[in-house]
Amino acid sequence: MQGRHPSAQLVAAESAGYLIDCGEGTQYVLRDLKLGISKIRAICISHLHGDHYYGLFGLLDTMALTGRKAPLYLIAPENLRGILLEIGRSTQTPPSFPVHFIGTSLADTGLNVYTDELISIETFPLDHGVHCTGFLFRAHRPARSMRKEKLFAGFPYAAIRMLKEGKDVYDDGGRLLYRVSEYTIEPAPARTYAYCSDTVYSPSLTGYLKGVNLLYHEATFGSELEAKAHARGHSTAAQAALTAAEAKAERLLIGHFSSRYSDISPLLEEARQVFPETYYAEEGVTFQV
Amino acid sequence: MQGRHPSAQLVAAESAGYLIDCGEGTQYVLRDLKLGISKIRAICISHLHGDHYYGLFGLLDTMALTGRKAPLYLIAPENLRGILLEIGRSTQTPPSFPVHFIGTSLADTGLNVYTDELISIETFPLDHGVHCTGFLFRAHRPARSMRKEKLFAGFPYAAIRMLKEGKDVYDDGGRLLYRVSEYTIEPAPARTYAYCSDTVYSPSLTGYLKGVNLLYHEATFGSELEAKAHARGHSTAAQAALTAAEAKAERLLIGHFSSRYSDISPLLEEARQVFPETYYAEEGVTFQV
Repeated sequence: MQGRHPSAQLVAAESAGYLIDCGEGTQYVLRDLKLGISKIRAICISHLHGDHYYGLFGLLDTMALTGRKAPLYLIAPENLRGILLEIGRSTQTPPSFPVHFIGTSLADTGLNVYTDELISIETFPLDHGVHCTGFLFRAHRPARSMRKEKLFAGFPYAAIRMLKEGKDVYDDGGRLLYRVSEYTIEPAPARTYAYCSDTVYSPSLTGYLKGVNLLYHEATFGSELEAKAHARGHSTAAQAALTAAEAKAERLLIGHFSSRYSDISPLLEEARQVFPETYYAEEGVTFQV
Repeated sequence: MQGRHPSAQLVAAESAGYLIDCGEGTQYVLRDLKLGISKIRAICISHLHGDHYYGLFGLLDTMALTGRKAPLYLIAPENLRGILLEIGRSTQTPPSFPVHFIGTSLADTGLNVYTDELISIETFPLDHGVHCTGFLFRAHRPARSMRKEKLFAGFPYAAIRMLKEGKDVYDDGGRLLYRVSEYTIEPAPARTYAYCSDTVYSPSLTGYLKGVNLLYHEATFGSELEAKAHARGHSTAAQAALTAAEAKAERLLIGHFSSRYSDISPLLEEARQVFPETYYAEEGVTFQV
């Protein structure tokens, strides 16, 4: 979502949602786009600048008001815990659902902070002056499926289970009975999505982003303001593209443009000269990973 | 403003603005309505339920980002101070302007908490379960003006000053020279505006609201839900109207309607049966006091 409201992105996996950052008004945008607030399992907050989290308090209240019972995982800088405690002191109503707070650390270099049956989330440090982390979403690789034409009545169930796990099946004497490559269909590789906002350009990011399917990277300024971008802890569009190229990403999404750009097409053009598969993150637009 | 966004009202006096409550998204509404954020001198927060203050953090950031230097007066429950301190710990950028925090107290019964050359603000306790106060805005009464036809060359300046202050002027021997009623025009009475949200119906409010020109009073429910209103610390439309009638208010504005009412005209009708001069506070609508 890029437009009227500050940063927020919803990562959807099957029926579950995972929110990354939550600027003021995010709950209204989610409501207008009919993106189910109740389906959100985890909220990741990159850093505690207001445009990335001031919408969190209202969203949490709305979850409580709508009777949420499911636990919510909140992955964010430790300081947010104190802010939520202070705010909670004044409402005097206990939340209707458990919030599991997972504090991020700049020492987390690719640490897995969350896993469910659909995805896992890793964090890695960004360089933005204040404590700021990126997030890598990894969809679990689907299981191998059996080649139906190879099955027959009475095909041993234990063998199917081994083959789906990618193991060739031998008999007790060590003779090969069923070969994985012959009996199963290779599943699609696990898809990944990475979120990098806000950060200066840093070659060290490449290690966390290697081969990522879809990379979101901030592009606050154009190259004409590279010095300003660096001074303010931000990147240029060309630098976002360079990161995507170095990481051998499949596609790049850019966003978080400075309000000085009423027309952002030069930023897109600048990035595409370095990394052609660049798109911009507009409010309400969905990208398939 | 009643509509998409939670509570916020802007009281305007000449070129100055005073904001009452500041729900999430208030800064966007102010921007869209072209109500100058830079002109806001004071922000009054009635209580710390999110729909009344979650927009404050973003508004303060926007004031800083746009280079505000003028001091801001923040009149709110003491707990807000701790919340702002916690939030400030994470941004690591000092604010560009001074914020004078004036903590409200439930013991404040008609206490003057703010005065400038245009208006003064008094607080009084509301009954909403949590610490919640109402606000009474009092525009300073304009000075008497002289009846021009009574003036003549050499009319003593000291006498003009006394007459404008409402004092008859005598000579040293105690003889009446100029009578106020004869030489001056009675100024319009000081105009008052009172804000009561959120609160249960309470006859004790009348004392603070006596003769108020414009009264805003919440009307969350209709009379069919009077028990629910009371249990939740809210009022019905009829109760808001009763308060207005008891206070001998000139006009009543009702708002803060429960989202269960897609059509709020029955609430207006209910209030008007008790107090005919009732209107509703719609988003973007301005009322002249």
